[in-house]
Amino acid sequence: MEILGYYIDLDETTHAIKDKGFKTVALQIPDGLKGSASRIVEFIEKETNCITIILADPCFGACDIANYELKNLGVEFVIQIGHTPIPNLENISIPTTFVNALSSKEIIKSVENSIPFLDGRRIGIVTTAQHLHTLDDVEKILQKHNLEPIISDGDERISYKGQILGCNFSAGMKIVNEVDSFLYIGSGNFHPVGLLLSSKKPVIAADPYTNSVKKQELEEIKDTILRQRYGAIANSQNARKFGILIGIKKGQQRVELAYKIKDILNSANKKSLFLAMENFSPASLSGFRDIDCFVSTSCPRIAIDDYLQYKRPILTFAELEIVLGKRKWEDYIFDQIR
Amino acid sequence: MEILGYYIDLDETTHAIKDKGFKTVALQIPDGLKGSASRIVEFIEKETNCITIILADPCFGACDIANYELKNLGVEFVIQIGHTPIPNLENISIPTTFVNALSSKEIIKSVENSIPFLDGRRIGIVTTAQHLHTLDDVEKILQKHNLEPIISDGDERISYKGQILGCNFSAGMKIVNEVDSFLYIGSGNFHPVGLLLSSKKPVIAADPYTNSVKKQELEEIKDTILRQRYGAIANSQNARKFGILIGIKKGQQRVELAYKIKDILNSANKKSLFLAMENFSPASLSGFRDIDCFVSTSCPRIAIDDYLQYKRPILTFAELEIVLGKRKWEDYIFDQIR
Repeated sequence: MEILGYYIDLDETTHAIKDKGFKTVALQIPDGLKGSASRIVEFIEKETNCITIILADPCFGACDIANYELKNLGVEFVIQIGHTPIPNLENISIPTTFVNALSSKEIIKSVENSIPFLDGRRIGIVTTAQHLHTLDDVEKILQKHNLEPIISDGDERISYKGQILGCNFSAGMKIVNEVDSFLYIGSGNFHPVGLLLSSKKPVIAADPYTNSVKKQELEEIKDTILRQRYGAIANSQNARKFGILIGIKKGQQRVELAYKIKDILNSANKKSLFLAMENFSPASLSGFRDIDCFVSTSCPRIAIDDYLQYKRPILTFAELEIVLGKRKWEDYIFDQIR
Repeated sequence: MEILGYYIDLDETTHAIKDKGFKTVALQIPDGLKGSASRIVEFIEKETNCITIILADPCFGACDIANYELKNLGVEFVIQIGHTPIPNLENISIPTTFVNALSSKEIIKSVENSIPFLDGRRIGIVTTAQHLHTLDDVEKILQKHNLEPIISDGDERISYKGQILGCNFSAGMKIVNEVDSFLYIGSGNFHPVGLLLSSKKPVIAADPYTNSVKKQELEEIKDTILRQRYGAIANSQNARKFGILIGIKKGQQRVELAYKIKDILNSANKKSLFLAMENFSPASLSGFRDIDCFVSTSCPRIAIDDYLQYKRPILTFAELEIVLGKRKWEDYIFDQIR
């Protein structure tokens, strides 16, 4: 079915529901599709005769796999729309299927517009789930312009060639030494700026929604983020008590890293507490008034993207290393979950 | 240990941790105690040598029992502070203990102050978890004034005699026909106003924190709430599509009620969707733009207390019955989870 410019193919899913005889299923959808949730539910219920419960909490990615507690609601199967699976992450409690939402936007114009901005001849191509099906076309356009497109697999958190997540740029990093610059297909700044920060190669973003191309703007956002991160690090120099944030959502759990941080802080004579959360919010953390600084092992976007929402600094692991003198600012790296 | 005027006895808990040999425990605390979480963690870790992970998501009551996903963090045992258990609710996934936080505030003065405001001779006494230990004294003060205090058990969601929850006034309702008025010991308005709305008997609140007494003020808040509820009902008259809210938190699940609501809406030719949520927030619901009205089967406070935060009406079950002409406004009842 087509919804708001996205093609969502639910046929395989409804067949699976009928095959297995599921009576109650749950549906996770990104915020942008909530207004069309009724249409999706109507389609599923008409095809399968099962009851569909929408999970209305925000769902930002496949890292947010549905909760065991849903078993109490009779949920036997979860359908997550708009994300691709994270291969090394399994929902052991309730079987879950991921149905991508493919953008119907034409990419030709935005890619053509990007050509003059690309650096060098060897171009790494990356994108997000919604535009994965366009990569063959992107490749052809680049070849037509005598460029050498390179598309790589990612690591074991990545489903498809050329795909990057806000927390994983491995499909770019694997080819960072083979390319002169990167072409990112998609909207939003977090993904291309993350790749820019991680790869230190030029990144050009072609936005199929507006046909605009961003290059200098990404550099400026990168500089702003780096200034903010430098500020967060500087503000944490005298911190005595740290809150080590652990994501409860299964795909955001980095428990070993949390324990490692605890050890490092102990060695540096700093006090620390483990704070686990399902949903990170400034309001939930504000009560911990005696904590000077948070270090997040959960979704990297909490520290970077939500920076302005929090009153006390939230650092990534690498930033904590800088605070403790174990890493130089020049060796700054962007946080990723691998 | 004493924290911010509350006595929290962790001895039984630390003995249990040592007896069972737990290595990792989780701690749930109300927002008001988050600033002292470090002291509690230090005490537990010193006594037991186990690792303590604080659960930083808001925890408003024993209905919010910790999540199965914590098993992935190695959590073997959960300590919830500030609430008493809900007897008919068991955490089957991770053993959980409840440690009450008893207020050290003297209640004598506020109770003495309340005497002139009490109606009749037979006085039902109710309170919240923090003041349960004062009920013997309250009883004696009333007897001294030739009054007849009556303290009752609640239903199977209530641990202690005389205890009410924001979602359960059964310890009052069981004696509603035996008493002339109620005396509530505690701060906050939601509990006494809830009892006032449920019982239709006068409620006098004695606040041990300020030694103030509220009676007329509760009537005024009740009237404001009723006006708001009347408005929500009126605004829902033409609603075509309803969102039936289901709480994922185990103690807030009323799945059968949700299915009953779906049936009633079907019979009335109204469309509806099930929306299940872990954490209710206006932001999470705002995306469902095609829904005209929500009906909550989860925590009653979402519909009543958070009224102004939501742009579209949220009704309780009884209010939906009024909208559909199945109940009269004169027979309005306050929502409770029993």
